[in-house]
Amino acid sequence: MKTITLLSLICLAGALPAGAPAQTIASPSGDLTLVFGLSGEGEPVYSLDYKGKRIVDRSRLGLRGDERDFTSGFEILSVDTLGVDRTWQPVWGEYAEIRDNFREMAVGLRASAPEREMTLRFRLFDDGLGFRYEFPRQKEGSYLTLKDEATEFNFTGDHTLFCIPGDYDTDEYLWSETTFSTLPEAMNGYRTHSEAQRTGGNTIQTPMLLKTADPVYVNVHEAALVNYPAMLLDVDTDGHAMKAHLVPDRLGVAGYMQYPFQTPWRTLIVSDDARDILSSQLILNLNEPCAIEDTSWIKPMKFMGVWWEMFTGHQKTWAYSDDYLAKPGITDYTALTPNGRHPANTDNVKRYIDFAAAHGIEGVLVEGWNEGWEDWASYRKNRQFLFDKAYPDFDVEGLHEYARSKGVKLIMHHETAANAADYALQLDRAFQFMKDNGYDAVKTGYVGAIIPRSEHHTSQWMVDHVLDVAKRAADYQIMVDSHEAPRPTGLCRTWPNWLAQESARGGEFESMGGNPPSHTALLPFTRLKGGPMDYTPGLFETRLSYYNEGKDSQAGTTLARQLALYLTMPSPMQMACDLPENYERFPDAFRFIEDVPVDWRDSRYLEAEPARYITVARQDKHSDDWYVGAITDDKARTALIDFSFLPEGRQYEATVYEDAPDADWKDNPQAYRIRKVKVDSGTRLSQYLAPGGGAAMRVVPLP
Amino acid sequence: MKTITLLSLICLAGALPAGAPAQTIASPSGDLTLVFGLSGEGEPVYSLDYKGKRIVDRSRLGLRGDERDFTSGFEILSVDTLGVDRTWQPVWGEYAEIRDNFREMAVGLRASAPEREMTLRFRLFDDGLGFRYEFPRQKEGSYLTLKDEATEFNFTGDHTLFCIPGDYDTDEYLWSETTFSTLPEAMNGYRTHSEAQRTGGNTIQTPMLLKTADPVYVNVHEAALVNYPAMLLDVDTDGHAMKAHLVPDRLGVAGYMQYPFQTPWRTLIVSDDARDILSSQLILNLNEPCAIEDTSWIKPMKFMGVWWEMFTGHQKTWAYSDDYLAKPGITDYTALTPNGRHPANTDNVKRYIDFAAAHGIEGVLVEGWNEGWEDWASYRKNRQFLFDKAYPDFDVEGLHEYARSKGVKLIMHHETAANAADYALQLDRAFQFMKDNGYDAVKTGYVGAIIPRSEHHTSQWMVDHVLDVAKRAADYQIMVDSHEAPRPTGLCRTWPNWLAQESARGGEFESMGGNPPSHTALLPFTRLKGGPMDYTPGLFETRLSYYNEGKDSQAGTTLARQLALYLTMPSPMQMACDLPENYERFPDAFRFIEDVPVDWRDSRYLEAEPARYITVARQDKHSDDWYVGAITDDKARTALIDFSFLPEGRQYEATVYEDAPDADWKDNPQAYRIRKVKVDSGTRLSQYLAPGGGAAMRVVPLP
Repeated sequence: MKTITLLSLICLAGALPAGAPAQTIASPSGDLTLVFGLSGEGEPVYSLDYKGKRIVDRSRLGLRGDERDFTSGFEILSVDTLGVDRTWQPVWGEYAEIRDNFREMAVGLRASAPEREMTLRFRLFDDGLGFRYEFPRQKEGSYLTLKDEATEFNFTGDHTLFCIPGDYDTDEYLWSETTFSTLPEAMNGYRTHSEAQRTGGNTIQTPMLLKTADPVYVNVHEAALVNYPAMLLDVDTDGHAMKAHLVPDRLGVAGYMQYPFQTPWRTLIVSDDARDILSSQLILNLNEPCAIEDTSWIKPMKFMGVWWEMFTGHQKTWAYSDDYLAKPGITDYTALTPNGRHPANTDNVKRYIDFAAAHGIEGVLVEGWNEGWEDWASYRKNRQFLFDKAYPDFDVEGLHEYARSKGVKLIMHHETAANAADYALQLDRAFQFMKDNGYDAVKTGYVGAIIPRSEHHTSQWMVDHVLDVAKRAADYQIMVDSHEAPRPTGLCRTWPNWLAQESARGGEFESMGGNPPSHTALLPFTRLKGGPMDYTPGLFETRLSYYNEGKDSQAGTTLARQLALYLTMPSPMQMACDLPENYERFPDAFRFIEDVPVDWRDSRYLEAEPARYITVARQDKHSDDWYVGAITDDKARTALIDFSFLPEGRQYEATVYEDAPDADWKDNPQAYRIRKVKVDSGTRLSQYLAPGGGAAMRVVPLP
Repeated sequence: MKTITLLSLICLAGALPAGAPAQTIASPSGDLTLVFGLSGEGEPVYSLDYKGKRIVDRSRLGLRGDERDFTSGFEILSVDTLGVDRTWQPVWGEYAEIRDNFREMAVGLRASAPEREMTLRFRLFDDGLGFRYEFPRQKEGSYLTLKDEATEFNFTGDHTLFCIPGDYDTDEYLWSETTFSTLPEAMNGYRTHSEAQRTGGNTIQTPMLLKTADPVYVNVHEAALVNYPAMLLDVDTDGHAMKAHLVPDRLGVAGYMQYPFQTPWRTLIVSDDARDILSSQLILNLNEPCAIEDTSWIKPMKFMGVWWEMFTGHQKTWAYSDDYLAKPGITDYTALTPNGRHPANTDNVKRYIDFAAAHGIEGVLVEGWNEGWEDWASYRKNRQFLFDKAYPDFDVEGLHEYARSKGVKLIMHHETAANAADYALQLDRAFQFMKDNGYDAVKTGYVGAIIPRSEHHTSQWMVDHVLDVAKRAADYQIMVDSHEAPRPTGLCRTWPNWLAQESARGGEFESMGGNPPSHTALLPFTRLKGGPMDYTPGLFETRLSYYNEGKDSQAGTTLARQLALYLTMPSPMQMACDLPENYERFPDAFRFIEDVPVDWRDSRYLEAEPARYITVARQDKHSDDWYVGAITDDKARTALIDFSFLPEGRQYEATVYEDAPDADWKDNPQAYRIRKVKVDSGTRLSQYLAPGGGAAMRVVPLP
């Protein structure tokens, strides 16, 4: 199905001056209406209504640079509208086919003295709005030293906000559920992260979620962030307004732009049904089609990792030795005294390979395999790591052969200590080293303050860098899982080898203060709208005291919930994060992780409320099996699973992995049950979820 | 010959406190004496005498960082002295064998509260002093955020100074001949360079030259600049003193140091005979030995270049098209309208190859061969050039084949527009592209303001970058000629594939204001002490009006002087910079360029006075031929050439390329004569040099 309708193309005889009649478009269903106009001063302004209710009140638009101001003095030159209804097939994802159905209005604007031209392109979908600024070549000047984006989102009341504090360098925060009026208090409650660069004040990150009293839900984010800094939002708590805040470099410049250019899309996903926020593919739709011709080598996968050992109380380390002065000076690591607590050793990796091979897990990630971890000195060293130099106890060639013999793929870890400049210098040889040794996927890391020292994690240069890395990886047919990179904006549509990112507080924090159950009930409404997250589910041993009596922290989850996360936190690169020995303690539960796919033909969000609960059903892309996941927050809940998504008249057997009646994330997390139940399209199943709990189901057609 | 003598090793029973007796060492000949001690406050201080005269008065030493201060509170822990006399063979250079003969004193210092340790290592040669700071691991703390180096050079009078203004980004200035007292006036006389970052005030660059009234000559510079910022000098004009001024990054940090580390050597080349400054190999001696095992692929060479055409009045351009908006957006250069003034086209390059092949010139450089010159936007673009994408009119494969068939090597140009960060990302593929297409040498360029935007051309990160490029080039067996890179400090000893650098105002400025004759009579005393310069001699048509009537600038040289520069400006990568058609006008003079070698067995400086005159004789490394070059400033001069360097009893024929009696750089630059004269070791030849002129001789043994 592909329909493109030229709705109208207004070649205005004369330009429409400031104060001219507003231009209006409606979404295909008519639910959303956008009005665009110019203020008396020629400022571009817009407003957005949903089902007759004002969502975004009159809000200004524009950009400011050192050389030119694009915020006022405009007249309307042209208004082009277009209707598009088409479908496309992602390489992987929640859906085998995605519908891209929108009405577009492109408003050509011109200002004089000096002459400036800018086009505002709006795309109105049934699930929301995307708009961007497009700058053609200007009559004078080639460049814009970008300082500020004037984009406003003026909301209409003291809505609920789900957000994290504004930061130029990290997204790894717990989420606040607050309102405009209580935002300052919420922001003051955050401790400053050691590697963070907090903006301070009432600035928050995108993606964020807003909920009105009605309720209407609005996700605010951006799509196709390329050659531009990431966007934060300055919140006016009295005016219930937000304004774009571009991440500057450390010299104070937001972007070095050259005409012609376009900004990323500013996105609002809007619905009165929270499930629509989850199912929305608006951000992917606003990204460019796949740029990789042959995608046959891109293979979604589950993986385990020599990783959690370093987070637990085992005192295991990424470093091979305890001599923290090992660099610089020491070049012969064989001369160092090994600390005996270095899990990235050949024997241990073989143990993971064996386990993965026995259980159908495709990949094994190994962290701490290369020299340089002894002395962590992000920002201070122009070189911390080489990416082709393994520790003496990590046999690259031997493990290559061993993994191949077992049919398992090793996944390489490239922790750059945030030295993106040096990573660039090493990139080709690093990727060649990977291919020479059988690695098809890399987890990149940027922990610390960025080098080049002029940059932040989310400033324009770094946005370019991480995309350059993904593109270069594609040249080598390497899949990428980026950690500490700018939050995703749907670029995985264009570069589907970019399987996943971190860019939020992930499962690793279960060992560093913990994630409350509500955290994973919110992330799909916020962070995940940009793209899949390598959250690292699958934690079976949730009590850190199990590893170390001195540690009393505990993951905010039951064991059954961890299984449900494979459905509620979909990712084509999905970890089984726990230790093999912990999985061996619960082989019947681990069976679900073995079975669950990571790529889907269809997805149905059955129940959803942000930070409260999510129930989703997904169909395996390669079989007729369905899977269901349901999670709640820290309160027990009965999920109602309506199986009407099943084809009529066909019988299925559901294997249900559920919290035991006495399960509780805090006191009894490992109490689960497995039962089988017959279901068909008429089944309505009430499913108990313990506090912090969840349920996972495999639903297989009966013969 | 290799002698290493342990002169003494004082293991002090107790430390020597501040005010303890000074430590003294003398150079092997005894001409230089260094005294080291501690002030009453425990500040390390030194002084230097030459033949009984004080050259450097009591001057402080030390480093300051955010975490620690290493400038005072010290006591002496140990004093180790050592005598070394050895020789080594450079891969190429002015001498086939270099003597490294010095006395060393290493003073171990300790301060307390907090405890700090530092060693000052002095090496006293007969031609000067080198000293550096060495920092072992400290009891507390691993890092030093370097802010300032306290090193002083307190001179003893209002000496003459030959210097250029302090600048973090360029060395391409004309030189001032001034004094301490008139320095402010001289510095104020400089216009600010468009791409420069002037320090302002009385800050000057190294290498600089100082001349006392006696006279004694002193060259101040540094050796082995690695992982440290370049050094400038803050001048106290009243106190006749200089103090180290480290180039900071744009965030104000001079260096990110980790213990253990050492600074570059601070060098003073000292003599009462100006010729000794020229013959000094002190800076090479202070560098590490060659780090490349197989150096057989490193081949000194002469080369021509598609280059001067762009500087003359021809209006030729590096760019293929005049559409300066060609990037971004335009990716198909074949769709652009060529401007017809793009010399880097296949036919023209073949013309250069033909000429080079016919005249025994090994290489042909081509500038403007790759896409991206239309829109020069240094600092603004995260990508300006690709290094594997040729313009449509430059046939990479065809030229590879053509050059090979003619026995000529093409030299690639990598102009980065100062985007070192992006160059790093492209480096491996750029070098692989070179090797795939038969290129063995690259001229790199960093015109503009540096990206990473935190950096200057000579800040620590860039110092690392250019060395990384040279090392990576060595991996590919590629020779490097760096332009706009940090001034050299003898690193070509360690990385002899790094044949040459620019890092001064080169011959290209003959088309941009001109270089006075004194310029090339001074550079060998200053800039060249760090390493060979790609000055680009060989200019036969010196009047820019020849190319374009509207241009009245003129090179400060006669034609004969240009031949002499091949001797007075020695480089293993030596250009014949003029157009083939100009060489065809003067085939008898061009014969000298054909004949002159670029690698030497021996060199004898016969006459020298900075900015006035230089006469040098050099023996070809691969034959018994000698060559003589003599230049003067803008005054006529008669050079006295004492041929006693020739072996006794053997007859030679000298072919003399000299200024005609009526030659003059300004009014009659192309008036030259060629004559032959018989010479032997007893010959004393008076050789006339015209104003701005010179003479070049090939001296061949008679059968």
